[in-house]
Amino acid sequence: MSIYWSSVVHELTPYVPGEQPKLPDLVKLNTNENPYGPSPRVIEALKREADDALRLYPDPNADLVKEAVARHFELMPNQVFVGNGSDEVLAHTFLALLKHAAPLLFPDITYSFYPVYCKLYDVPYETVALSEDLEIRPEDYLRPNGGIIFPNPNAPTGRAVFRGAIEELLSRNDQSVVVIDEAYIDFGGESVVPLVNRYPNLLVIQTLSKSRSLAGLRVGFAMGHADLVEALERVKNSFNSYPLDRFAIAGAVAAIEDRDYFERTRNAIICTREKLVQDLSGLGFEVLSSAANFVFARHRQRDALELAQQLREQSIIVRHFRLPRIDQYLRITVGTDDQCAVLVRALTGILR
Amino acid sequence: MSIYWSSVVHELTPYVPGEQPKLPDLVKLNTNENPYGPSPRVIEALKREADDALRLYPDPNADLVKEAVARHFELMPNQVFVGNGSDEVLAHTFLALLKHAAPLLFPDITYSFYPVYCKLYDVPYETVALSEDLEIRPEDYLRPNGGIIFPNPNAPTGRAVFRGAIEELLSRNDQSVVVIDEAYIDFGGESVVPLVNRYPNLLVIQTLSKSRSLAGLRVGFAMGHADLVEALERVKNSFNSYPLDRFAIAGAVAAIEDRDYFERTRNAIICTREKLVQDLSGLGFEVLSSAANFVFARHRQRDALELAQQLREQSIIVRHFRLPRIDQYLRITVGTDDQCAVLVRALTGILR
Repeated sequence: MSIYWSSVVHELTPYVPGEQPKLPDLVKLNTNENPYGPSPRVIEALKREADDALRLYPDPNADLVKEAVARHFELMPNQVFVGNGSDEVLAHTFLALLKHAAPLLFPDITYSFYPVYCKLYDVPYETVALSEDLEIRPEDYLRPNGGIIFPNPNAPTGRAVFRGAIEELLSRNDQSVVVIDEAYIDFGGESVVPLVNRYPNLLVIQTLSKSRSLAGLRVGFAMGHADLVEALERVKNSFNSYPLDRFAIAGAVAAIEDRDYFERTRNAIICTREKLVQDLSGLGFEVLSSAANFVFARHRQRDALELAQQLREQSIIVRHFRLPRIDQYLRITVGTDDQCAVLVRALTGILR
Repeated sequence: MSIYWSSVVHELTPYVPGEQPKLPDLVKLNTNENPYGPSPRVIEALKREADDALRLYPDPNADLVKEAVARHFELMPNQVFVGNGSDEVLAHTFLALLKHAAPLLFPDITYSFYPVYCKLYDVPYETVALSEDLEIRPEDYLRPNGGIIFPNPNAPTGRAVFRGAIEELLSRNDQSVVVIDEAYIDFGGESVVPLVNRYPNLLVIQTLSKSRSLAGLRVGFAMGHADLVEALERVKNSFNSYPLDRFAIAGAVAAIEDRDYFERTRNAIICTREKLVQDLSGLGFEVLSSAANFVFARHRQRDALELAQQLREQSIIVRHFRLPRIDQYLRITVGTDDQCAVLVRALTGILR
């Protein structure tokens, strides 16, 4: 506390990301990173950027990235907004498109950064309860609102909503923006990007951190009607002209263009996930059906926090949330086959 | 305009950065970039980052950068805040430390992003006129305020304020934060970083974009009392957990540690500047005394905008501001000796 702080600062409860411990030989299954490195073409593109041109500012509009995203998703570049990770894209979205007199709606159990953005920008909000079996029911969002946001698949449950249900919501809720946060969509969900040209109130946010193995590079993007993108550009250009450095621009373009590598690694993770679900079920876990690169599971007999701590003693880190309704669950990132085998072996020992 | 925009968006007048034209053979003297590339040790460090570890998030706190800055300036790491370029650091500073009921004060002629941040965060402000000869007089800021910010040297004038005058201001204005934006300090100004341990209301902001030749990497930092840094951390952690990617972290550390390269390139630019000032004076320009890597000059007979356009026809870009009091000035970045010679030759032809 300090007399020099603005009143905003006194009110904030910052987001706490999953820890990034600096220990060797860790099996790190706590922050949903991709177990595979980025495409070799990305690595090559990044090496080429390490040169004298770094003395120059990057393109403030990151046009090459917008064009690559537009080509990939069959959109126009002015339907694409890019930022320093999807967290920055989300932050600008809360201020530019979700701050209205009526409350923003999002699930009671979801990405825990959403209420933090609301505090930062003084956005009124209400949470909508997930169903008994922890599903988002889009029809529950048909009530007065200044905006709607949820991840699909949801975090940390991994459960996905069908495109048809979102389309129904979009057509019945046309007076406010509906943001679908597709951070994990590539691992089994049904993207709503094909609806962008039909619904002027739809904004879809994706990231290169998960399915493109680039959490270390910080690139996220939003896709929607050019008017929505224009609002985001205005906020961005009132905040920081150059959020993407030269590496982020070059790496993002290469990652989006290497579809083969993306398909192969994404498919490998899906295979590993299915095996992991089976193994965990065999150990007495109840595992929610996951369309993400993580699973959300609770053991029928054992306390989740204790299990997380016991795994930690064996240098295996998974994520536990001390939150109502989900404090008996563990969120486990899908690693390589080997990492998951280590996890399953450790759990077998602990549960013996 | 769109019904989906928040009221904030309707009010914004975004900052317009100097253009980044994509033309070959340009003599680009419009955005104060360093004419020399980054240190070879930086290039090496950056190449090493292009590997599989990019699948992992960077350190959200960028501790290595904070420690390098702290060592360099003889501070503690908790007196250092880092961000995605000094523009992001400034944005967080406006919200965290400069938003109060009383108006923020800054010069009438200064970095044109300041009023944009005020609009974004609804910060009340008043401008304080520069003196007749375009100098900041710190004593003019001794009036009721919620904060004070100015660049030293000022942009776009290049004029510097002595440390003693800032110290006087700090001791007489102890109820609000005084931010000194030292983006250009290394080219001849007197840094106030040595005052950080004595004044709990002083925040100093620097960048690697200018004197460390890393505009393309996006790293800025603030130094001040740990309580001021804590306010910035709270806002940052309510906005984006990971603003610095793995390249930015590695490159920043290497750049801060290579003092020799920094000294050599900085001194070369100062030498070139002195020669450029002489040459421009010989051509009939009145040149403000500059402590920055640019000069601010007006010709005694010729219109500034016309001169800028004539230079542009010869692929030489300088910056002109259509603003009261300074619309007869050109802001010219100090390039290499060769670039400045090209400029002087072109001006000689135009003015013949």
